[in-house]
Amino acid sequence: MGAVVLYLAVILAAAKLGGDLAVRVGQPAVLGELVAGVILGNLGALGVSAFEPIKTDASIDMLSRIGVLVLLFEVGLESTVAQMLKVGVTSFFVATLGVVAPFALGWLFGAWLLPEASPYVHAFLGATLTATSVGITARVLQDLKASQSAEARIILGAAVIDDVLGLVILAVVTGILGAADRGGAMSYGEIGIVFGKALVFLVGSLVIGAKLSRRLFSVASRLRARGVLLALGLAFCFFLSWLAGLIGLAPIVGAFAAGLVLEDLHFRDFTARGESTLEHLVQPISSFLVPIFFVLMGARTDLGAFGQPGVPLLAAALTVAAILGKQACSLGVGKGIDRLTIGVGMVPRGEVGLIFANIGQTLTVGGKPVISGAVFSAVVAMVIVTTMFTPPALKWSLSRRAAKSPKPPIPGAHDAH
Amino acid sequence: MGAVVLYLAVILAAAKLGGDLAVRVGQPAVLGELVAGVILGNLGALGVSAFEPIKTDASIDMLSRIGVLVLLFEVGLESTVAQMLKVGVTSFFVATLGVVAPFALGWLFGAWLLPEASPYVHAFLGATLTATSVGITARVLQDLKASQSAEARIILGAAVIDDVLGLVILAVVTGILGAADRGGAMSYGEIGIVFGKALVFLVGSLVIGAKLSRRLFSVASRLRARGVLLALGLAFCFFLSWLAGLIGLAPIVGAFAAGLVLEDLHFRDFTARGESTLEHLVQPISSFLVPIFFVLMGARTDLGAFGQPGVPLLAAALTVAAILGKQACSLGVGKGIDRLTIGVGMVPRGEVGLIFANIGQTLTVGGKPVISGAVFSAVVAMVIVTTMFTPPALKWSLSRRAAKSPKPPIPGAHDAH
Repeated sequence: MGAVVLYLAVILAAAKLGGDLAVRVGQPAVLGELVAGVILGNLGALGVSAFEPIKTDASIDMLSRIGVLVLLFEVGLESTVAQMLKVGVTSFFVATLGVVAPFALGWLFGAWLLPEASPYVHAFLGATLTATSVGITARVLQDLKASQSAEARIILGAAVIDDVLGLVILAVVTGILGAADRGGAMSYGEIGIVFGKALVFLVGSLVIGAKLSRRLFSVASRLRARGVLLALGLAFCFFLSWLAGLIGLAPIVGAFAAGLVLEDLHFRDFTARGESTLEHLVQPISSFLVPIFFVLMGARTDLGAFGQPGVPLLAAALTVAAILGKQACSLGVGKGIDRLTIGVGMVPRGEVGLIFANIGQTLTVGGKPVISGAVFSAVVAMVIVTTMFTPPALKWSLSRRAAKSPKPPIPGAHDAH
Repeated sequence: MGAVVLYLAVILAAAKLGGDLAVRVGQPAVLGELVAGVILGNLGALGVSAFEPIKTDASIDMLSRIGVLVLLFEVGLESTVAQMLKVGVTSFFVATLGVVAPFALGWLFGAWLLPEASPYVHAFLGATLTATSVGITARVLQDLKASQSAEARIILGAAVIDDVLGLVILAVVTGILGAADRGGAMSYGEIGIVFGKALVFLVGSLVIGAKLSRRLFSVASRLRARGVLLALGLAFCFFLSWLAGLIGLAPIVGAFAAGLVLEDLHFRDFTARGESTLEHLVQPISSFLVPIFFVLMGARTDLGAFGQPGVPLLAAALTVAAILGKQACSLGVGKGIDRLTIGVGMVPRGEVGLIFANIGQTLTVGGKPVISGAVFSAVVAMVIVTTMFTPPALKWSLSRRAAKSPKPPIPGAHDAH
C-alpha cells in the first residue's frame, strides 16, 4: 500500500506536467502523458531506479485497466446507439479494410525480411498488425473536442468491429498454428463459435441493454442514497466489461457499449431534481484514472529495445505496414467524410498488438516460438511509434480538415431557398 | 481483471441498495453499505460462493484502501487548519482520555475473564481497544451533514491524535512483550523515537504543508492540461499518505492532513476561471471508491465467529469496555459541546483494532501467542458491534442534541443589546 500511493502521486504529477508541455507546443495532452511515462520508465537507464517498480506493480496495472474502461465508457456516453448505427455500415467497411490491408502487408514484409522463418510466422506477424487500439484515438479525439464528429464515430465503431475481427483472426491463427504444430487442422465450427459469441454480445448489449438500462435507471432514480446515478452507471459499465471479457472480447468493448447504451433520457429523473448528468460525474474519475493508463503505457516502453541487432529494420518495416495498411480504411468511407482522418485515427496499435505478440511468444511451430525475442522487440517498437504518431498526426489532419471545410455563409450573401 | 470488474459492479449495486434501505428506515447510508457487505460476505454459509473471493481479492482491497484515503481527504477538505487548531487542546484531552480508559477497562476485563493468561495478554487486550477508527465516524458525520460541527472537528482531531497515541502504545507494548519474551527490557529511547516521528509529521505537514501547497497550487494553476486541480490535489493527498505510512503512521492520517492543509484560497486561480472546487471534484471519486471500503469491511465480517465457545462472553465484555471506555472522552470537552456525541463518535474501532489483534497473533510470550484464536474472534466481534453501533447511535445523539439546542429567537421577541 505504501509504495502504491507514492507511485500514484508521481504518476498524476508527471501526467499533468507532461500534459501541460504538450498543450503548450500545440499537441494533445495525451502525448505529454505518454512522453512523461517514457521518461519515468527509462530513468533506470540513468541510474534512478526508484520508479522502476511502477511498470510491474499489480495495483497500478489494475488502476490503469479500470482507467481505460472509464475512458471508453466516457467516450461511449458522448454518443448514442442511434448515432452509431447511422455510421454502422461505413464502420464495418472501414474495419474490414483496416484489418485485411495490414494483415497482408505484415505477411509480405515478414516474408521479405525473415525469409528463413515459416509462413506461419509471417501470418502471425500480419495478425499482430490488425487490431486498432481505440484508447489512444478516443483520448486524442476527446482532447481535441472532436469525439462527436462523424469521423470520430466511424473510427470508434470501426475500432470496436476491429476488435471483434482481430479476436477472430487471433483465434483462427492460433488455432491453425496449434493444429499445425500437432500436425492437424482447425475446424470451421470453432471459428464460427468465436464469431457468433462476439455478434451476440454486441447486438445483445445494444438492443436488450438499451431497453433494460432505461428500466433499471427509472427504478434506480427512486433510491435515496447519495451518488446512486454514478455508482449504478459505473456498475453497469463494469458489468458489461465483465460480460465482454467472459465471452473472450476485450473488456473495453463492453465499457464502450455500456456508454453507448446509457442515454441522458434514462436518467432524466435524476437530472430533473438537480443532480449532475452521468457524463459530468464520470469526468473527475476519468481525470484521476485515465492518466495512469497512458503514463503506464509510456513507462513500459523500453527504449533499449530499439537498439537490438536486426530490430531497427524489421521495426521500420512493421511500422510502415501498420501505418500504410490502415490507410486502406479511407477507401471504406463515402463523401463528406475526411478520409485522412479515418486512416490516421485507425493507426494506433497500443496494448492489443502487444497482447498478440505476447501470445506469439508462447506458441511454437516445429519447436521454435512463433515470435522470437528480436521480433517481439520490433513489434514493441511498432506499437510505440504508431502510438506516438497518432496524437500529432490526428491533430494535424483534423485541423487541415477544419481549414478545408466550407465557411458558414457570409450574412447577406445567403443562397435562395 | 475479469472478476474484479464483476465484483466492482456487485459491490457498487449492493452498496446503493443497502444505502437506500438504511436511509428509508432513517439511518445513515453507511450502515446499509456495511449490512450489504455482511450479507454479501456471508452468502457462502447459504451455499452461494460466487462472491467469496471479494473478501481476499487484492485489487478490491487496494481500491478500498484508496477509498478510505479519499474519504479522509474529502473530510479534511471540509475543515481548515485554523478550525482544527481551535479545537486542538480539547481534541488532545478527548483523545488521551479515550485511550487511557478503554486500555484500563480492557486490561481489567481481560484479567477477570482470562485469569490464567499472563498480564502481558491483558495489557495487549487493553491496547487493542485504544485506537478509534475514524473512517466510520467521518462517514456518518458526512451522511448526516454534520461534519463541520464543533463536535465533528473535536472527534476527527481526537481520532488523529488517537492514532498517534495508539501507534505509540502498540510500539511500546510490542517492544515490552518482545523484550519480555527474550528476557530483556525496552529502552525509553525507542519509545521516544516513535513519538517524535509522529509529532514531526503532524506539525510538519500542517505548518510547512500549508505554505508549500499554497505555492504549489499557484504554480499549478498555470498548467494547461485538463483536470490539473483534481489530479494534483489527489497527488498531494497520496504523497502525504505515503509520507505518513513511511514514518509508521496510518496513511489515513496523511490523507486527512492533506485535506486540512488544502484550502479554497490555494486554488482560487482555478475557481476564478470557472472550474469546480476541489471538494466538488473529489465527490464523484468518493462516491465510487468509498462504498467499496465499507462493503468490504462488512463482507469480511464472519458471522460464524460469534458462535465459537468462550467467545460470546469475552466479546460482550470487550464491547462493553470499548463503548464505556470511550465515554471517558466526554470528560475532556467544555461547555456548549455535546458530550454524548463525542463519546459515541469515538466508539468505532474498525480496522485499527483488527490490525492490533492481528499483530497480537504473531507475538509470543513463553512460547504461546499473545492473542489466541478465540480471543481474536472476540476482538472481531467487538469491532463488528462497535462499527454497527456507531451509525444509529451517532444519529440519535445528534438529533437529540438538535432537539435540545436553543431555537433561534422568535422575531419580535429580540433580546436587548
